Amino acid sequence: MAPLGDGGRPARGAGYPERVTFPVVGMVGGGQLARMTHEAGIPLGIKFKLLSDSPQDSAAQVVSDVVIGDYRDLDTLREFARGCDVITFDHEHVPTEHLRALEADGIPVRPGPDALVHAQDKGVMRAKLDEIGAPSPRHRIVADPADAAAFAAETGGFPIILKTVRGGYDGKGVWFVRSEDEARDPFLAGVPVLAEEKVDFVRELAANIVRSPHGQAVAYPVVESRQVDGVCDTVIAPAPDLSPDLAGQAQELALRIAKELGVVGHLAVELFETRDGRILVNELAMRPHNSGHWTQDGAVTSQFANHVRAVLDLPLGDPRPRVRWTVMSNVLGGDYPDMYRAYLHCMARDPQLKIHMYGKDVKPGRKVGHVNTYGDDLDDVLDRARHAADYLRGTITE
Amino acid sequence: MAPLGDGGRPARGAGYPERVTFPVVGMVGGGQLARMTHEAGIPLGIKFKLLSDSPQDSAAQVVSDVVIGDYRDLDTLREFARGCDVITFDHEHVPTEHLRALEADGIPVRPGPDALVHAQDKGVMRAKLDEIGAPSPRHRIVADPADAAAFAAETGGFPIILKTVRGGYDGKGVWFVRSEDEARDPFLAGVPVLAEEKVDFVRELAANIVRSPHGQAVAYPVVESRQVDGVCDTVIAPAPDLSPDLAGQAQELALRIAKELGVVGHLAVELFETRDGRILVNELAMRPHNSGHWTQDGAVTSQFANHVRAVLDLPLGDPRPRVRWTVMSNVLGGDYPDMYRAYLHCMARDPQLKIHMYGKDVKPGRKVGHVNTYGDDLDDVLDRARHAADYLRGTITE
Repeated sequence: MAPLGDGGRPARGAGYPERVTFPVVGMVGGGQLARMTHEAGIPLGIKFKLLSDSPQDSAAQVVSDVVIGDYRDLDTLREFARGCDVITFDHEHVPTEHLRALEADGIPVRPGPDALVHAQDKGVMRAKLDEIGAPSPRHRIVADPADAAAFAAETGGFPIILKTVRGGYDGKGVWFVRSEDEARDPFLAGVPVLAEEKVDFVRELAANIVRSPHGQAVAYPVVESRQVDGVCDTVIAPAPDLSPDLAGQAQELALRIAKELGVVGHLAVELFETRDGRILVNELAMRPHNSGHWTQDGAVTSQFANHVRAVLDLPLGDPRPRVRWTVMSNVLGGDYPDMYRAYLHCMARDPQLKIHMYGKDVKPGRKVGHVNTYGDDLDDVLDRARHAADYLRGTITE
Repeated sequence: MAPLGDGGRPARGAGYPERVTFPVVGMVGGGQLARMTHEAGIPLGIKFKLLSDSPQDSAAQVVSDVVIGDYRDLDTLREFARGCDVITFDHEHVPTEHLRALEADGIPVRPGPDALVHAQDKGVMRAKLDEIGAPSPRHRIVADPADAAAFAAETGGFPIILKTVRGGYDGKGVWFVRSEDEARDPFLAGVPVLAEEKVDFVRELAANIVRSPHGQAVAYPVVESRQVDGVCDTVIAPAPDLSPDLAGQAQELALRIAKELGVVGHLAVELFETRDGRILVNELAMRPHNSGHWTQDGAVTSQFANHVRAVLDLPLGDPRPRVRWTVMSNVLGGDYPDMYRAYLHCMARDPQLKIHMYGKDVKPGRKVGHVNTYGDDLDDVLDRARHAADYLRGTITE
């Protein structure tokens, strides 16, 4: 990679290279985040290399340089990393010790293992947030169902939330527990269990920022994230009627977390907005995130483009919105497998609609794509996204 | 491909397919237009297959499904076309008879050979434009230098323009001729030579439209195209101070040409705006075109996305601008091969800058990328594009 710091060019003839190869960004994981990061990297002329489980993976379908292999195997990772100028991630599941081994081999890993562990282990994350004074729901590690009941008693009673500290996403690994009896399942996996109070929140927000190794950071507008059955359904950018004070607090919090944890790349801080006007950290994600998909069509620089720029330590792009309102709605698999046919209706009905499909087979409930809409009238923008997502899924037919 | 026409979906259980494979778009030619078309196709979930001369070609670097082969060889084309739902093009050089053979094999070719021949052969183009009453510079095929001198005498004297009817692009195959003596070179290739009057123009414009097999068409705003040494340097969208009447004429002309010639996909009509307030057709291009690169960041739907939608006969996307002014400047190769290092300065100076590089080795004068800038103040937008293009090329160092 190019050295940062001088921002200039050497004089002609001063050992200037005759031919320069653009850097190679290696991405571990072949999901839709890798697919869209590749898409965003094409205009930069960088080379993109993918480590994917299968050639049918979302990103593997569209990337030229794909290695099929298991990210849990260190030899595979090492072989993949050879020739990459930096390694980054589609997901947070690569074992911490493997990341340390890659760093020991001299490969920049961004975000690095010391940062990433906070997105991998909810126990480590909560401890760190407490240490830096970032607001969390009340929480502690609990040993068994009886201890969970004790935690409930300490915090005002059931219901409480139990989470396995590792391995959860999109509502998996999270239990809404109303009694000691219901508290048994989370302990079956043999992974430490974190108890959290059930927060009295009015809505969920996300504060998304991107930070470079150089320390530059940009903050996207704080968005509202609407969940259905624990899965993100719709994101509104910016969050409607959010007080400027709370929006500023959320952005500053995300920037501070990124700095304190040493995050490089995109950081999503999922937040609760409480009924009494506070924000509490729900989850952290250190990669492009569903709550940032709106930026593809609604911001000057998308989260994917800025993630690439950050991991290469290039100056970051403008994160500001291009339009008053942007709405993202996820497209989940439904009863109809033929989403392509649905394009006819959706595109004809709304020529401004932006469809982003992931190349995945349709399975009920699976995230297979998303749509973005934008404009000046929020109700209209919401309606258009809702209609397209529902029509593509097949829950409406006109 | 999905049948067009009903826009609806069959009832559940009515022979509905269990699993649908998105269509395969086969693109012949591995240049930057294919690269950017692939980028634009990723969100649609379509499959993109490339026929490229070399694995180092611009598009071949970023596409997963690449066939390396020679588009002039019919067997290669046929083998490539197998499994494609439609064939389209990065360039206009595929022999007409090969395209007819593919059509005879049952493969949709878009644009088809009967349309494409008008972009391949300037003699055929001029004859057709005359036939449909589209305004051209005065012109005729000339037999030799003496005949060229006779044409000059008929049209007010030298200088005149001579063009070989096939094989030219970016100023190649075009001669600015001041005398009979200078008129010899064009005849050396043994290709018919077209003579055209030297038009007294105030500037060059381009009217870009996209048309689907279904007959739907959308018109982008008419742009101003500034050339340097016969190569497009900067495009301003929309063309500043263009009279609404002339803009409307240009759009209608492009739509009429597309319809009369049966164009499918993106059509660029390069125009002269004459000193006496007329428009004359300079060239036609039936593919995404340099004069449409601004749409990537400045229009609701890019020319690349609409080209893909057109060749698949999907409803077209909104062509309107998202912002008052967008400027595209080409990045040509210069003395400095290391354009990546120049990113540091360009990105830090202008966080709104959009860089589009093609993955090509730098050679002096070669188009290796472009930049887009946009905003409300045209002077500022022009300055930013100029600065970035010059800095990337290395003609300025601060």
